[in-house]
Amino acid sequence: MHIGLIGLGKMGGNMRERMRRAGITVVGFDRDASLCDVTSLGALVEALPAPRVVWVMVPSGDPTHETIAQLRGLMDAGDVVVDGGNSRWTDDKRHADELAERGIGFVDCGVSGGVWGLQEGYALMVGGSADHIELVQPAFDALRPSPESGFVRAGGVGAGHFAKMVHNGIEYGMMQSYAEGYELLEKADLVENVPEVFDSWREGTVIRSWLLDLFAAALADDPDLARLRGYADDSGEGRWTLEAAIEHAVPMNAIAASLFARFASRQDDSPAMKAIAAMRNQFGGHAVHTQ
Amino acid sequence: MHIGLIGLGKMGGNMRERMRRAGITVVGFDRDASLCDVTSLGALVEALPAPRVVWVMVPSGDPTHETIAQLRGLMDAGDVVVDGGNSRWTDDKRHADELAERGIGFVDCGVSGGVWGLQEGYALMVGGSADHIELVQPAFDALRPSPESGFVRAGGVGAGHFAKMVHNGIEYGMMQSYAEGYELLEKADLVENVPEVFDSWREGTVIRSWLLDLFAAALADDPDLARLRGYADDSGEGRWTLEAAIEHAVPMNAIAASLFARFASRQDDSPAMKAIAAMRNQFGGHAVHTQ
Amino acid sequence: MHIGLIGLGKMGGNMRERMRRAGITVVGFDRDASLCDVTSLGALVEALPAPRVVWVMVPSGDPTHETIAQLRGLMDAGDVVVDGGNSRWTDDKRHADELAERGIGFVDCGVSGGVWGLQEGYALMVGGSADHIELVQPAFDALRPSPESGFVRAGGVGAGHFAKMVHNGIEYGMMQSYAEGYELLEKADLVENVPEVFDSWREGTVIRSWLLDLFAAALADDPDLARLRGYADDSGEGRWTLEAAIEHAVPMNAIAASLFARFASRQDDSPAMKAIAAMRNQFGGHAVHTQ
Amino acid sequence: MHIGLIGLGKMGGNMRERMRRAGITVVGFDRDASLCDVTSLGALVEALPAPRVVWVMVPSGDPTHETIAQLRGLMDAGDVVVDGGNSRWTDDKRHADELAERGIGFVDCGVSGGVWGLQEGYALMVGGSADHIELVQPAFDALRPSPESGFVRAGGVGAGHFAKMVHNGIEYGMMQSYAEGYELLEKADLVENVPEVFDSWREGTVIRSWLLDLFAAALADDPDLARLRGYADDSGEGRWTLEAAIEHAVPMNAIAASLFARFASRQDDSPAMKAIAAMRNQFGGHAVHTQ
Repeated sequence: MHIGLIGLGKMGGNMRERMRRAGITVVGFDRDASLCDVTSLGALVEALPAPRVVWVMVPSGDPTHETIAQLRGLMDAGDVVVDGGNSRWTDDKRHADELAERGIGFVDCGVSGGVWGLQEGYALMVGGSADHIELVQPAFDALRPSPESGFVRAGGVGAGHFAKMVHNGIEYGMMQSYAEGYELLEKADLVENVPEVFDSWREGTVIRSWLLDLFAAALADDPDLARLRGYADDSGEGRWTLEAAIEHAVPMNAIAASLFARFASRQDDSPAMKAIAAMRNQFGGHAVHTQ
Repeated sequence: MHIGLIGLGKMGGNMRERMRRAGITVVGFDRDASLCDVTSLGALVEALPAPRVVWVMVPSGDPTHETIAQLRGLMDAGDVVVDGGNSRWTDDKRHADELAERGIGFVDCGVSGGVWGLQEGYALMVGGSADHIELVQPAFDALRPSPESGFVRAGGVGAGHFAKMVHNGIEYGMMQSYAEGYELLEKADLVENVPEVFDSWREGTVIRSWLLDLFAAALADDPDLARLRGYADDSGEGRWTLEAAIEHAVPMNAIAASLFARFASRQDDSPAMKAIAAMRNQFGGHAVHTQ
Repeated sequence: MHIGLIGLGKMGGNMRERMRRAGITVVGFDRDASLCDVTSLGALVEALPAPRVVWVMVPSGDPTHETIAQLRGLMDAGDVVVDGGNSRWTDDKRHADELAERGIGFVDCGVSGGVWGLQEGYALMVGGSADHIELVQPAFDALRPSPESGFVRAGGVGAGHFAKMVHNGIEYGMMQSYAEGYELLEKADLVENVPEVFDSWREGTVIRSWLLDLFAAALADDPDLARLRGYADDSGEGRWTLEAAIEHAVPMNAIAASLFARFASRQDDSPAMKAIAAMRNQFGGHAVHTQ
Repeated sequence: MHIGLIGLGKMGGNMRERMRRAGITVVGFDRDASLCDVTSLGALVEALPAPRVVWVMVPSGDPTHETIAQLRGLMDAGDVVVDGGNSRWTDDKRHADELAERGIGFVDCGVSGGVWGLQEGYALMVGGSADHIELVQPAFDALRPSPESGFVRAGGVGAGHFAKMVHNGIEYGMMQSYAEGYELLEKADLVENVPEVFDSWREGTVIRSWLLDLFAAALADDPDLARLRGYADDSGEGRWTLEAAIEHAVPMNAIAASLFARFASRQDDSPAMKAIAAMRNQFGGHAVHTQ
């Protein structure tokens, strides 16, 4: 199989390598010329035999919109574009429609795996029509952890990114659960060696998981997490999960709380809590902390 | 009516004044001798005609336990002790039983009103037997806002403090609701004059309230709340409300969130969010903020 | 002043009456011909002297879009359209732009007051340019509770609906706070007369409010709320508040919990809790409840 | 090694078997005579060589209190009692003190593993002094999954149960995260085969875990969870986790939400939401659902 791959960053670079190891001919392009196999998108498309498969692995939003718009002008009917980035599922329909006008197929693919994917494989959640997916299948098979695992056709266009988005929402909730438990163990002062406790949970418990393995490794390296600040970004997919929950009237208290905790972690001072302090001051003459 | 009043701080001092204005003879005692009408608890008890009523208005926990233990040794059968402080409702049964051994009655009374009570009156939530409450009624009538309002016999011993505790739990949730709305208005940048919006809500809206009046006053005084830090203590009753909810299996998401927001407001750095940062660092090579 | 009013339902009908009492000439139109003063939108516009003011008071979304599109074809440069419905603030910019193309002004106005507005007046949160608002001011003054209260120019186009939306988000949180407190009082069995407790809170407490007055009235009428089901719709504005919080990274735990509680109240059975039951069954052999 | 084991139910029975397979002589006792190796606690104690180790595996609360009180009368100085049940950590200090008066040691041990423990081993979180633990170590080594995993001395008396309690709190949060994600996938109608998506997540994803394996198995067996009701009990440890968080001022929004979701799942009708419906009815004339 031949495939074009646009975006050779942390994720894309490793995916190129994993596909090559599986015998796929990958033609890579990136804004950073030093990473490229070709000098332009046009050259990339020309380097591929028809029907072509081009995998887009660039940031969601404008970079993905623009890349797909360019490919629309370069590719031919019968070709397929895969969006493997973290696009919002609502973008997929638009991209599919734009490409379909020129007979080009579209597949959305949510990819999980992070920096471990090169070695362990990537979990792939795919949306699109069966015939478009079929063209890409050798690439999916190269990327997934094993022939029996880590791949699902979740549904039609958009279903892949939607499934990946929900995956990330669940991830937020799981991480927050470990984090809240960690804070309680730290604060309660009854447990003498918190890192050892987390390490001991890695086998035989109900809460064993890959995330727990990672967290235990982090604690082994920095037992008090003294080198970190309690600051967490959010990547967009947590927000979209909550927006989808609102749309579908799904009570999502735990995942919402996990997202809000990240928001709060990035505030130097909380306007809401200033408001609380102001009210307490008014009605109770409570001591307040002033600037 | 004669009444003994122990604890002449911010609340007790104003309550003495309001009772005196209503023609009640109040004998006050406080740790601070400069506030006292008598020099000892013994002198206070002796200054009252039987059957005596002594109102305890000291901090909950040990100060209240110790004061009631002393009164138990000084008072006589037929007298009544009122605990008007912020005791946990579970303390009331114990105090009532201790006093009952010597024939002394006990009434628990949750008091709301803060620094505005002298002028506007206090809302009183009372627990105990009808005959004990009857002895105290003239004091309750002096303290309440009007003969028709601000007083309820909530039930037997403990019911007064329980009702007051729930009142405070509701207060946490209402304050948090205004606070979250405030933060959104501040952040969204669409509303040009947030203090004016809050002020306009004071009449004709569904959310008008006394708390809103106070908050509007605070914003009129300090439009950006620039003089305050987003730091809020909690007084114990919010925690007890949540503990009671746990005991009775009541889903209490909004009030719990309000309490947790106060906890978080007092953290310089969040151990939980350090844990999130550690996990993100492990699986994604995400940029993290280090100390 | 003359004003056209489109939508004469529960809200619009009362607003027409309140404006007429204040001496304003109101020309009303509704889909229900029996409520109308004129037979068509065209007739309504013709009945007004220039510069015309037409107040749209129809459901948000398509009914408002369509009404404004029609007015765009009927009105003239210098006229002003007011959207007094519950439109999403993001619709306002679009409507303003569409009307501006023909020189017609636009003002968005969030209206609070419900069925009590005729008697007590309406709180108005207004967005738009000062000169457009000036044309409508006599109507605003007729509707607001008093010359000093219940009106604010929150900012430019959209700010009125945004402020009203946040008002409703706060309302969700306040209602949920009372509701959680109510459930705890009911379940704990310590408080003997829950309706009396709520009634006693109406004066002198920190949590007194108009909503509390309403709730006390409801409890006076139906002390166990035995005639109601625990089912609550949501009107859209709670969802939009949460969406705006997500957009602006505002931690909004209490209001989110209030919205989710409504979602959950409408479920006969919870898919999420079926999932919990399924997991518990797998790992612990816990007894589960089957259909 | 010889050990006495009291409580031979679902957990205890399997633990006896696993210890026996490791060559430990286990003397078992249960209320159910058909499961017993001896006819009384006295006979159990007599059957063990000194210094004796007796493992208590009965329900927390009174059954554990009473069993330990009986053992206190039967055992000798130098013996050790292990509480392997789900006791609240605050009970441990009391039990340790009672036993210490007679020179008997105490070790608390939180046990995770459920019905899978016989085969996969149990994760053990242990609290107590090093010399008491040393006496029990062969039993711990027999029960744990492997010589390198599933065992930790968390700290002094109480630390074992505290760590296990936090484990369970985390478990609540993780389960709720999967459950909320499941409900969103089900409701959104974009993903065509939800069970396959969960199954695909078992390898290569950030959220892979043992709980996910179990949930995927449950979905394989009953793809719509049609045979279950959305009803979930809670075992006590979730509540205790939240109580400990309150005590230590730990913001615990996600785990609290998970506990509250279980509370709500057991309500036929929600008093809180009846209160919401009552308020909505009062202020807006909103349609409400009546009984």
